[in-house]
Amino acid sequence: MNVAPLATTGPIKIIGTGLLGTSIGLAMSTHGLAVSLSDISPTTLALACSVGAGKAAAISDDDPHLVVVAAPPDVAGPLVVQALEDHPGAIVTDIASVKGIIAREVEVAGADASRYVGSHPMAGREKSGPTAAMADLFVGRPWVLCPTADTDPTAVVAVRELAVDLGATPLVMGAADHDASVALISHVPQVVASVLAAQLAGAPDQALGLAGQGLRDVTRIAAGDPGLWTQILAGNAGAVADILRSLATDLDAVINALERLAQNWDDAAGLQAVARAITAGNTGQAAIPGKHGTRPRAYDSVVVLVPDKPGELGRLFAEVGGLDVNIEDLELEHSPRQPVGLAKISVLRGVGASLAASLRAQGWTIAG
Amino acid sequence: MNVAPLATTGPIKIIGTGLLGTSIGLAMSTHGLAVSLSDISPTTLALACSVGAGKAAAISDDDPHLVVVAAPPDVAGPLVVQALEDHPGAIVTDIASVKGIIAREVEVAGADASRYVGSHPMAGREKSGPTAAMADLFVGRPWVLCPTADTDPTAVVAVRELAVDLGATPLVMGAADHDASVALISHVPQVVASVLAAQLAGAPDQALGLAGQGLRDVTRIAAGDPGLWTQILAGNAGAVADILRSLATDLDAVINALERLAQNWDDAAGLQAVARAITAGNTGQAAIPGKHGTRPRAYDSVVVLVPDKPGELGRLFAEVGGLDVNIEDLELEHSPRQPVGLAKISVLRGVGASLAASLRAQGWTIAG
Repeated sequence: MNVAPLATTGPIKIIGTGLLGTSIGLAMSTHGLAVSLSDISPTTLALACSVGAGKAAAISDDDPHLVVVAAPPDVAGPLVVQALEDHPGAIVTDIASVKGIIAREVEVAGADASRYVGSHPMAGREKSGPTAAMADLFVGRPWVLCPTADTDPTAVVAVRELAVDLGATPLVMGAADHDASVALISHVPQVVASVLAAQLAGAPDQALGLAGQGLRDVTRIAAGDPGLWTQILAGNAGAVADILRSLATDLDAVINALERLAQNWDDAAGLQAVARAITAGNTGQAAIPGKHGTRPRAYDSVVVLVPDKPGELGRLFAEVGGLDVNIEDLELEHSPRQPVGLAKISVLRGVGASLAASLRAQGWTIAG
Repeated sequence: MNVAPLATTGPIKIIGTGLLGTSIGLAMSTHGLAVSLSDISPTTLALACSVGAGKAAAISDDDPHLVVVAAPPDVAGPLVVQALEDHPGAIVTDIASVKGIIAREVEVAGADASRYVGSHPMAGREKSGPTAAMADLFVGRPWVLCPTADTDPTAVVAVRELAVDLGATPLVMGAADHDASVALISHVPQVVASVLAAQLAGAPDQALGLAGQGLRDVTRIAAGDPGLWTQILAGNAGAVADILRSLATDLDAVINALERLAQNWDDAAGLQAVARAITAGNTGQAAIPGKHGTRPRAYDSVVVLVPDKPGELGRLFAEVGGLDVNIEDLELEHSPRQPVGLAKISVLRGVGASLAASLRAQGWTIAG
């Protein structure tokens, strides 16, 4: 992260020192900004201080230029209102993953909304808490800003500068648009992965033993934290329910078609309904932008057999690197019950064949 | 694939020269077995011959010891029946991904079921057709055999030997168990990924631009072929519908809870229902075996910032390999709109801290 000089003006106060708050503190402190921290948990606060995210906020020296409320969605609203009251000269943002409900809480409370901009960095990790914090957490991630009609432009600029200083890419969007967007691309997928994974509980080992990479991918995010996700889903309940209802209707159509097909496996209407659902999935999947926010490029892929022992994958990538070929994407496929793996290397179109030939010449087993 | 000497006795006849049939022919031909090929499409057949999978079957010399029907589920049954009639001395298997419906077709036709064993190699690629064939396609994959009460043990042994010769791991399972298992771990996830991805079609670019790795993972298999998947789902419609109904019930409970929460975001019953769904997903996700068919191990993970230019990932893996550390799993996270990537390296527990320290010492930016 080479962002010096910083545009953000300190001192900065961070309320809530979990993963995100501590990561912001760490990055800003590293670059010399004065950061004060507070958290409802003294232990969490002490940990955040110990990793170098800032110092514990003291009443006497507590005069921040910018306040970041980095608390869960169900407490972010009251904390923003409190911060606007406590620090009448400060710009205040929160970074919770729902925005409409917090903006409404600020409005209802009659706080000075001109100094408030809700925001949402699209960043996170599988680990949580201050010890998982990393100064680079926001690098390359979108950071959505949701100003309202009441927001002063200087407040928007201040939070945008914070996002840029942290290496993120700022975007401005209305709170309702933001909430509908994240419902679609994050909250609904979470619910779907969870209810799918739930069907696996109690399944015979013999069935689960056949699981491949597909199932692992579809259910990976089902490992998400129930406490946090309940708050997020509750805070965006209307938008999420709207999309889930549409999804449930599509699902019912497939179930009805399958029930017809279970009676008569060449039922024409049933076959058509199933084909329609899979085709619609093709279209939707293809609409997801690829790396760097662009539409997906067609890559060549080279699948290499990798013995499962130390150094083999390293040796493979060293040889790919030595050929001056950039790896655009990579998947490791697990091979159940066998000490071997498949590395699928995606490279720019046109490069695949020569890469495969070179690796073969170096003794690798190339698939296809 | 070091499997010499082969246990499989030739000649072998392969009916259907798509990806799977051609891959079997390629592996067996490479090891010197006589392989004859047939396909309803002369072009597909010619391509399979040209990649070295065998020679086109001629009536005169067509006396196989083993016939493999490698055709889609909707034609596999009649082709098995025909093969049992045409080749009264041969053992016949098919490798379609549904098994009960094909066994019933063989039974109803009154064919000699003692020489038939349905089977299902859990292998595939994103590409299809004979030109995508690879002799290593089955290495390390489960290969399910579904003998019935009518099947002669010599037939089971012959197909098991084929699976082992191809590098796969054979498992014996009843057809109903097989179909219920793949409904759960493959067919239902396909439908769910498809109906989820379908909701993305027509979404604003601004929403899709916020998509992260989670959405990509959940929807990846939604790119599957509609023609093939319609046949598979139709051939296993009852088992798939059973699980989807259970899933739809769970989904409805979440939708109802969200509708309550949209009115009152701290509705206790609503919050509990959502938390229950996410928690059930945690449990199901944790039940999926990890690499090598074992329960998931807790890995240490080290997240490294990788500049997106040729050789950087290679250099990283060369250095990891040089430390004699085995990479258990690996994820590349894309960074939208920024020329940087995050490589998450999973290593055995206890190894992470020293790996991170060593990489830091070599100048890498380690996250967390």
